Amino acid sequence: MATSEFATPEEAEEAFYKAFEAAELDAMMHVWDDAADIVCIHPLGPRAVGRSEVQRGWAELLGNGTEFHFRISGVHQVRTPELVVRMVQEHIRFATESTTRAPILATNIYRLTDLGWRMVLHHAAPQMRREGDASEVPRIVH
Amino acid sequence: MATSEFATPEEAEEAFYKAFEAAELDAMMHVWDDAADIVCIHPLGPRAVGRSEVQRGWAELLGNGTEFHFRISGVHQVRTPELVVRMVQEHIRFATESTTRAPILATNIYRLTDLGWRMVLHHAAPQMRREGDASEVPRIVH
Repeated sequence: MATSEFATPEEAEEAFYKAFEAAELDAMMHVWDDAADIVCIHPLGPRAVGRSEVQRGWAELLGNGTEFHFRISGVHQVRTPELVVRMVQEHIRFATESTTRAPILATNIYRLTDLGWRMVLHHAAPQMRREGDASEVPRIVH
Repeated sequence: MATSEFATPEEAEEAFYKAFEAAELDAMMHVWDDAADIVCIHPLGPRAVGRSEVQRGWAELLGNGTEFHFRISGVHQVRTPELVVRMVQEHIRFATESTTRAPILATNIYRLTDLGWRMVLHHAAPQMRREGDASEVPRIVH
């Protein structure tokens, strides 16, 4: 398990997806800030707030035996000295499938702490509509 | 249309949902930072990056005649001097319906600019699974 500090948000993000692929809960939780305000939302799932709820969600997800493989693309960022927002496209391939699914859109936020950069938010959601397909908008959501 | 500056992220957020309910595109775009790095993701929709794409998405959504009514709850925040992240639950009621739908989980980010606080990210996604319902996770997404 990694115990090093992350010198950049990019290092933290790399560790995040590495822990996800390896299904290593300790390594995953090492990426997250040890704080009450952290929030994690898995695609279509409820919102987990605080370290224990976030950890419980990852324990379920990483413990179910599914192997995830990630390719990250289309990174957009908002950077300040203390907080960095990285909006990425996650291209996920499951070990049991040969094709990659439609990308997941994720907002990942990292905060500079005394222990280096740590994750404070992961909000992931599937993209099911294409651009210009506005007709479905009010039917499904907003 | 509002042309005032927003002294707090909360003022910007109030203006955001007010413009949404009133379907006022100019007021909506006034909330957003005039910057290339802004990102907007409507529920299940694609990612709009930059002012023109973001505006096009809102023009479609606000122009389709649907009346939205919002109640916001469960606010969690990550605050720094320059950037504030507000994670909220949007309870949406449509004018044509008497009931409120399942909440939308939204991550709203505001940045302190020379013109006050402006929105730089709106990432909204439906919650379709309940807590502990981990079995669906790998089937749908991650």
